Amino acid sequence: MSNRIRLGMVGGGNDAFIGGVHRIASRIDDAYELVAGALSSTPEKSRVSGEALGLPRVYDDYKQMAIREARRKDGIEAVSIVTPNHVHYPAAREFLKRGIHVICDKPLTSTLADAKKLVKASDASDALFVLTHNYTGYPMARQARDMVVNGEIGDVRVVQVEYAQDWLSTPLEHEGLKQAEWRTDPARTGAGGATGDIGTHAYNIACFVTGLKLESLAADLDAFVDGRQVDDNGHVMLRFEGGAKGMLWCSQVAPGNENALRLRIYGSKGGLEWAQEDPNYLWHTPLGEPKRLITRNGAGTGDAAGRVSRIPPGHPEGYLEGFANIYTEAAAAIRAHQSGQPRPEGVVFPTVQDGLAGVTFVDACVRSSKRNGAWVNV
Amino acid sequence: MSNRIRLGMVGGGNDAFIGGVHRIASRIDDAYELVAGALSSTPEKSRVSGEALGLPRVYDDYKQMAIREARRKDGIEAVSIVTPNHVHYPAAREFLKRGIHVICDKPLTSTLADAKKLVKASDASDALFVLTHNYTGYPMARQARDMVVNGEIGDVRVVQVEYAQDWLSTPLEHEGLKQAEWRTDPARTGAGGATGDIGTHAYNIACFVTGLKLESLAADLDAFVDGRQVDDNGHVMLRFEGGAKGMLWCSQVAPGNENALRLRIYGSKGGLEWAQEDPNYLWHTPLGEPKRLITRNGAGTGDAAGRVSRIPPGHPEGYLEGFANIYTEAAAAIRAHQSGQPRPEGVVFPTVQDGLAGVTFVDACVRSSKRNGAWVNV
Amino acid sequence: MSNRIRLGMVGGGNDAFIGGVHRIASRIDDAYELVAGALSSTPEKSRVSGEALGLPRVYDDYKQMAIREARRKDGIEAVSIVTPNHVHYPAAREFLKRGIHVICDKPLTSTLADAKKLVKASDASDALFVLTHNYTGYPMARQARDMVVNGEIGDVRVVQVEYAQDWLSTPLEHEGLKQAEWRTDPARTGAGGATGDIGTHAYNIACFVTGLKLESLAADLDAFVDGRQVDDNGHVMLRFEGGAKGMLWCSQVAPGNENALRLRIYGSKGGLEWAQEDPNYLWHTPLGEPKRLITRNGAGTGDAAGRVSRIPPGHPEGYLEGFANIYTEAAAAIRAHQSGQPRPEGVVFPTVQDGLAGVTFVDACVRSSKRNGAWVNV
Amino acid sequence: MSNRIRLGMVGGGNDAFIGGVHRIASRIDDAYELVAGALSSTPEKSRVSGEALGLPRVYDDYKQMAIREARRKDGIEAVSIVTPNHVHYPAAREFLKRGIHVICDKPLTSTLADAKKLVKASDASDALFVLTHNYTGYPMARQARDMVVNGEIGDVRVVQVEYAQDWLSTPLEHEGLKQAEWRTDPARTGAGGATGDIGTHAYNIACFVTGLKLESLAADLDAFVDGRQVDDNGHVMLRFEGGAKGMLWCSQVAPGNENALRLRIYGSKGGLEWAQEDPNYLWHTPLGEPKRLITRNGAGTGDAAGRVSRIPPGHPEGYLEGFANIYTEAAAAIRAHQSGQPRPEGVVFPTVQDGLAGVTFVDACVRSSKRNGAWVNV
Repeated sequence: MSNRIRLGMVGGGNDAFIGGVHRIASRIDDAYELVAGALSSTPEKSRVSGEALGLPRVYDDYKQMAIREARRKDGIEAVSIVTPNHVHYPAAREFLKRGIHVICDKPLTSTLADAKKLVKASDASDALFVLTHNYTGYPMARQARDMVVNGEIGDVRVVQVEYAQDWLSTPLEHEGLKQAEWRTDPARTGAGGATGDIGTHAYNIACFVTGLKLESLAADLDAFVDGRQVDDNGHVMLRFEGGAKGMLWCSQVAPGNENALRLRIYGSKGGLEWAQEDPNYLWHTPLGEPKRLITRNGAGTGDAAGRVSRIPPGHPEGYLEGFANIYTEAAAAIRAHQSGQPRPEGVVFPTVQDGLAGVTFVDACVRSSKRNGAWVNV
Repeated sequence: MSNRIRLGMVGGGNDAFIGGVHRIASRIDDAYELVAGALSSTPEKSRVSGEALGLPRVYDDYKQMAIREARRKDGIEAVSIVTPNHVHYPAAREFLKRGIHVICDKPLTSTLADAKKLVKASDASDALFVLTHNYTGYPMARQARDMVVNGEIGDVRVVQVEYAQDWLSTPLEHEGLKQAEWRTDPARTGAGGATGDIGTHAYNIACFVTGLKLESLAADLDAFVDGRQVDDNGHVMLRFEGGAKGMLWCSQVAPGNENALRLRIYGSKGGLEWAQEDPNYLWHTPLGEPKRLITRNGAGTGDAAGRVSRIPPGHPEGYLEGFANIYTEAAAAIRAHQSGQPRPEGVVFPTVQDGLAGVTFVDACVRSSKRNGAWVNV
Repeated sequence: MSNRIRLGMVGGGNDAFIGGVHRIASRIDDAYELVAGALSSTPEKSRVSGEALGLPRVYDDYKQMAIREARRKDGIEAVSIVTPNHVHYPAAREFLKRGIHVICDKPLTSTLADAKKLVKASDASDALFVLTHNYTGYPMARQARDMVVNGEIGDVRVVQVEYAQDWLSTPLEHEGLKQAEWRTDPARTGAGGATGDIGTHAYNIACFVTGLKLESLAADLDAFVDGRQVDDNGHVMLRFEGGAKGMLWCSQVAPGNENALRLRIYGSKGGLEWAQEDPNYLWHTPLGEPKRLITRNGAGTGDAAGRVSRIPPGHPEGYLEGFANIYTEAAAAIRAHQSGQPRPEGVVFPTVQDGLAGVTFVDACVRSSKRNGAWVNV
Repeated sequence: MSNRIRLGMVGGGNDAFIGGVHRIASRIDDAYELVAGALSSTPEKSRVSGEALGLPRVYDDYKQMAIREARRKDGIEAVSIVTPNHVHYPAAREFLKRGIHVICDKPLTSTLADAKKLVKASDASDALFVLTHNYTGYPMARQARDMVVNGEIGDVRVVQVEYAQDWLSTPLEHEGLKQAEWRTDPARTGAGGATGDIGTHAYNIACFVTGLKLESLAADLDAFVDGRQVDDNGHVMLRFEGGAKGMLWCSQVAPGNENALRLRIYGSKGGLEWAQEDPNYLWHTPLGEPKRLITRNGAGTGDAAGRVSRIPPGHPEGYLEGFANIYTEAAAAIRAHQSGQPRPEGVVFPTVQDGLAGVTFVDACVRSSKRNGAWVNV
């Protein structure tokens, strides 16, 4: 329809998982139309993938796309960057400097230096920068955040967050699996393996929901699988400003865990528990009362969750809808920005600063672990 | 994109729940473009809703839409009918007789007479008829079906199926809630209340997964809420051809249940358990072995589930993706039909015959209950 | 200790399951001392079993035990009857007529005629008769009952109760398993198989918690396993006095179910859900509010549960403690009876009338099923 | 019965929780008879409590009891010590040196110095010393241990263990609750609060199941409640000999947690997950296969669990049965010891060395935390 945002995509060719996710997420609420792509670092692959998707305009590389689209009257208004991590910065820079809004996969970059440069590039641009820490799009994560803000659990004391997987329990990177190859290659993924890939998600959602700021951490990272170049398991103790404490566990070698992102927050007046794999449920215990099971759009949910929810309680929304919420929030922000209007109330999405915080977290984990698990400030 | 199927919609205006669901479902896999609508029985409402959606062509009523679209070269190829039940037949007829494929909400019709007429209209048409018994689109429902077919639980002996809600525990239909009004009005919803609205879903998924055919039933229907004109709770005992037995419970007055559709099947060699609210899990017990938790796209799932699954295990897909699977299956069938090719392997969706079976089931329940719960053949 | 009740036991020899359960249950709260036994219908087996248990007095048969113990100054005050069902009546009679209190396993008897005679024998005796429908001893079943009585779920509308097992999915009775043999032999177990063995438990707990009285039922019983002489699966629809409706399912051929007794009750103001396999949890939904998880001895539990609970919340009590509660309630009643004091407040246990109701239920199920599932009054 | 072990008890008067637990645990399998007690440090209270229990012999203090019972021909063979922690050592010493077997509550002692002395006292005695780290008595904890030993999860890589409660979320120790007073008083409980009370349980079960030995740890302990003198929350990172890593969390300020002891173990070939609050279930994931739910006495359980299990699967055993297993194992060891026979195969219970390991763990946590969370060797 006419008021869809014209969207381009960098990365996300045929054999990439996350590109397809971004495309579905952009479609669900009908706010975007994908019209251009540089879908692979190999021009030929980009072309084949673009044709398969029926894209009107396919480019050899992202720079070409940025230059040419910026010149078109009907050029893309926003771009999704869904490449391996080390390409995020150079790609984002090209679009930001041409005023094209950027929706970028996480982690922000593969190095802290790049992350800082990207913050500068973003600050220097009028365009918006949206980071798809997609789990913040889940309605019940927002419900939890809202309840913390409203004081329903009192002062936060303890944060337990974890993200466990099992798919890298064996050396898949030496068996030809592309997803495993780049995610375990420090040059492409960064110095953190599990830490960067999923630990940042855990860290991000914990900060998103609690509003806490990290002060220092101590990390013990391991590569349990022989020959692995980056960590596949990370244990981290957290100290937040103001005195709250936390533990963060990320693992890709925990058999029986698929995408077990789980957040538990305990305060002076209550507790909250949420798990990504069953995202429509939020457990809330007011201290001294029975545990309550709050369901998405069910009794006890407020506006923060309701405005990013589509269907009645008991009809599960999932990962793609949570991801779509980031896109839809971004669309609202883009449209407001374009029209010079204030951003609609409640719109929230992860920013370049959240991305910097994530890369800083990974950097601190790696530094701490190299120093034998010593405490380091962030 | 150019190869999207041009879609129209009957019903589904601003204040309808299910219309929005159909629209999202049609978009998720990018196989349809909604281009026309008669979104309300009130022309003015149809127009307002159509404009809000940015529809290129909005009509006053479905007949007008059928006639005009059939004449256009770029007219709709398929239509979604998402009205109250009593409109399904008259609307579908108009499109079927003009060769426009129909994707129709359930139950098929509000009366058995209409259902039979609709079967005839469908049989007489070259167009496809797809009924959105959307729960059959869930990957793990298909996994279960596949396992039954493959003999993994042996001969089916016992089927326990239920669909419980609580939203009609009070007389909302007398408090101005539109959704409650038509769903409790026999003229619009049919003779069955909970039976028609959700009992048919339960019945359909049980038959879909087990492949069993119902022989007879005994039903005890109640309207527990004062002044309610249709049943809000139904207890049904089932006898299937071949000797399997079942129980079906549907209720809209069961506090604590949102959309608790739950299917359990027990055979001579094993058991299967699945619940719509946690749809990514399927419990399988091979007789004499520990219970196993099969997850969507996880270890132990086969092609039947995998081909309608989009993302890795542990990333939940939900109601909208299950619904989208019906649309995407329909798209595959429509494209095959248009090109004269055989339908791609594995494509399956509920048909007009399934719809007739559902209305027959409701009719039998109502007949049995009126005869004091006597056994009646179907 | 000196104030323990002197207890005898009929049945419960070496190879019986339930005898050991009764013995542990009688010990947990230190209210009984087992001092005599007629542990088998075979005198030699009785002697061997009695010696293994270190019993002071072992008898050849129950009649001998009743006669001799009644004559002793330090004779047994109470007797546990844990034989196959057909022995319950003749054994109980001998003790009741000698003023010895009877604690009897369920179902009350194997025939309705015997049940009626046992009621008479009990009525004619000054001794107490306690039936070990042990699930009524679970604290959270009592919590549920208390909440129904207090109106917390309003008028009960719907009762869903089930007891599913899988251990008889194959013809074990033809493979030498003693437990399976007598439980599938109509002469010893009665006309109902699953119905009598576990259906009565389901029926009893439903009535215990809701306080409802059954009016009529329609039952469809099956023996799915070849050559089985009694039902191994029962589907029953229930109509209670006052208009509440229910469904009861019992099965011994449902793979994946061990002792899945589950009770769900829905009223005009709320719902309650409880499962025997996770007995320390009670789900309560006040209509229009989030579901709450009440835990044994945790926030929200009252005296009815607290007085039969031993340890803090989060430390699970199980089947044996629930069983012990029946024994301990019986001890309180026996002591009060002996001293001419009123029974302590809150003491409750299943009686001979509950037992008659259970046998009546089984009889009605069998009658209905024989009449092709017709409705029969009870 | 004649072959019951004569048991005494130190501590466990009227208002103590754990004394009652020990008494029930000692009774469940009929292996002990409680005949003597010094139930309180206040002689008058000891007498009152002893009379309430009907104890034949009540003493003013434990020393008196040890001396006099040792002289009797029918004196106690074993003693249960269930006092606050600081009394464990002096009390145990008196019995050990007189050859009376000791069953002692955990943690072993309140100080590391005492722990070492107690080890010496135990080593110097012919009597057995049994520590009631009761969670090791749960059948499924033993099943898990057995599976690790049998290599079913390969080399252990990651251990996640936690024990969370919420009962000390407010300063109950200043509101007159005796249980809270001594457990937060360093003089009676030791330097560790949550760490000593429940952290030791978590540490013990992790080592019991995995067989791993701790090498070093880093701990961050907090007292979140104002005025609390010992930690109420502990975060600990663990490094085991051989390279496995772990995290341990213990908390008494986590609202919504009652006795949430939870153990998760991940190895190169599979994973295991177990929770104390639902102790009859053990989740096992063989790498690359669906997760399996193994139930106590159900399919897939072996002898290690079966021999400490009493009733069929689906009938839950709980905390008291797990506790009883420690007592029953101790009885088997005592009887074997008395008769000069080898201990029966499979008998296992926590020893004084396990107790020393626990106190060493607490000491290391406190040392690490005082040194700002530095890594310390144990």
